[in-house]
Formats: sequence, C-alpha cells, structure tokens
Amino acid sequence: MRLYLALLHYPVYNKHQRRIASAITTFDLHDISRLAKTYGVKRFFVITPLEDQQGLVERVIRHWTFGYGATYNPFRKEAFELVAISPSLESCAKSILDLEGERPLLIATDAAKQSGRPMSYAEASEVVTSERVVALLFGTAWGLDKEVYSHADYILDPVDSGSGYNHLSVRSAAAIILDRLAGGYPKG
Amino acid sequence: MRLYLALLHYPVYNKHQRRIASAITTFDLHDISRLAKTYGVKRFFVITPLEDQQGLVERVIRHWTFGYGATYNPFRKEAFELVAISPSLESCAKSILDLEGERPLLIATDAAKQSGRPMSYAEASEVVTSERVVALLFGTAWGLDKEVYSHADYILDPVDSGSGYNHLSVRSAAAIILDRLAGGYPKG
Repeated sequence: MRLYLALLHYPVYNKHQRRIASAITTFDLHDISRLAKTYGVKRFFVITPLEDQQGLVERVIRHWTFGYGATYNPFRKEAFELVAISPSLESCAKSILDLEGERPLLIATDAAKQSGRPMSYAEASEVVTSERVVALLFGTAWGLDKEVYSHADYILDPVDSGSGYNHLSVRSAAAIILDRLAGGYPKG
Repeated sequence: MRLYLALLHYPVYNKHQRRIASAITTFDLHDISRLAKTYGVKRFFVITPLEDQQGLVERVIRHWTFGYGATYNPFRKEAFELVAISPSLESCAKSILDLEGERPLLIATDAAKQSGRPMSYAEASEVVTSERVVALLFGTAWGLDKEVYSHADYILDPVDSGSGYNHLSVRSAAAIILDRLAGGYPKG
C-alpha cells in the first residue's frame, strides 16, 4: 500500500460559497495523524498557503515529535512523525512524485454526490490496497473548491449512511473512509 | 434500530491507571452527535458526575439548539438535539429503560482485546440492527475503568487495523465502530 492523505485548507469554501483559506484545527492534526498511523498511510500532508498557519502546524509537530509531548506520549510522536506541511495541492503531489517516482492518483472526497468521475468504495479499496500510489484529498470548512475536483482523477462516493444527514466532521469522514478503504489490508 | 451511545467521563483511567473523572472535550460533543445523527442513533448520553462539567455540556447544547448556533448552523442543531447528560452509567441505563420499556444491552468498547465476553463486529452488527435496545459505551482519557467492563454484557473487539497501533481518538473510534455496526442499515 502506497497511500497518502492530504487535508486541504485552501482552496475551500466558506459558508457563503466563497473561496477561502481556512484556519488549522489542531484536533484534525491529532485525529488524522493517529488514523494515518493506524491504517498504514505513508504521509499525511497538511496543505495551507498561509505562513502563520504553517508555523502553527510546525510548532504542534515539533512539540509532539521532539518536545515535551514526545516523552509524555510516544504514541502521539509516532503519529505526528507522519505529518508534513505543503503550501498547495500541486506542491504536495510533487513531493509524493519525488518520494515514490510516480505521480499519485488523486481521489477527492466529498460529502455530496458528484456527477463526474465517481468512484465506489469497492473500486477505491482495490486501488488503495494495490501497489498504485494514491492520495486521498479531504477538505475543511464548507468543502473543497470545484477547482480541486477538476484536478482530481476520481471523486469518491459520499459516506452516505442512508439517513440523508451528511454533515460529519472531516475527522469522522476520514476515519470512516480509511476504515472502508484500508481496514482489511494487512499492515506492516 | 434502537441504538444509544454513551460517552463516559467517569469512571475512567488517567495515564497512571488511576481512576478519575475526565474533563469534557467539546470536539467530542460535536463529532459524536453528528455521527449519531448520521447513523440513526436515538440518543447520545454524555456521562459525567461533575456538576461544572454537566453545566458546560448544557451550555454547548443550548447554544446549538436554541442560541445563535441554531440559526447559524441548523445541521448542528439536529445533531445536538440528540445529546443528553447523565451523571452515571446506571442513571443512563435507567433513562433508556424508561424510554424504551426495556433494559439496554450494554456493549462496551476497548482499544485492547479483553478475554471475557468478547463480541465480534458481525455479532454486534446483527444485534444493533435488530429490534434489541443497545447502548454502546465509549471511554475518554486512558479508557474505561474495569468496573464498567464488569457491568457490560459484552465487550466489542478492538478496531484493530492490523497495524499494531491502537491509539485512535475516541471520536475516530466511534466513527469507525458506528460505520461498521450501523453503516449498512437503512435509516430514517
């Protein structure tokens, strides 16, 4: 498995469907890095073009990998060692290409069903657990800008429990999606 | 489906295996109430004996169900309407008995495998999606006190991705467990 996660803080929508750069939520870093470690993800990219927000992520990573946090909770250290910062999706894809020698297949997630290039969980699980390099893209705030979807190779079906309520946190969506796609895969 | 969730802040362990009452994490309330709404859970009980912590939960519920939050984000209102506060597991079980006319089957969760009364995901899913009244118990801090397990009817197998790393947040564990147990059940 050569799976990567990317959490985008730009370009995303705000409540009024305007394009923004969202603020970092430190709970996202903790929860999603621990998920990444649990499911054998190779790296978890936190994408933001804002330098002060990159600085915040750096400080959190440092605290848990080198600072007091690393001795206080070594399990958190293992998780935060997977976190990387990237200024854009393009730059993140380039980092993965450099690491793997192969362009990642970009699978974007969305809480709503889209019409173009849909991918089922069965199809996505097959690709994710193959030797193919895959990056799963998650949005913050009110979701990924349409520009991101236009760059994605596929758009994963919504989590869709059948209740008609599709307003999970990105942390919950990432947990469910990783379990569905990589939960049955034997990890190193 | 007659499924209930309970998030226990007492009795749980701290890092040094001492019994404590843990502090409320407001992200737990947001993430788990939204999960509850998504998966057709009937009520999400937040259990704490500490009055100031009960007061905090009440204020958060009020903000999102009657205050500014209710108009700012009506989806959050729908989720928070499922949240109830209870001082103890015993009292929570009594509330469910009063609501359902039937004692709930208590299924406790744990990040580690226990030896007594284990329950697989297939077994638990069958019970959860039946007409049986079920309460799933989740712990905070360093996990549920052994006293809670002694009161539980069953102990659900750990999430166990096979990576050997079992340090998910309770928010992530709840997401994965609900999707595994109630994800295929037609809601609404």
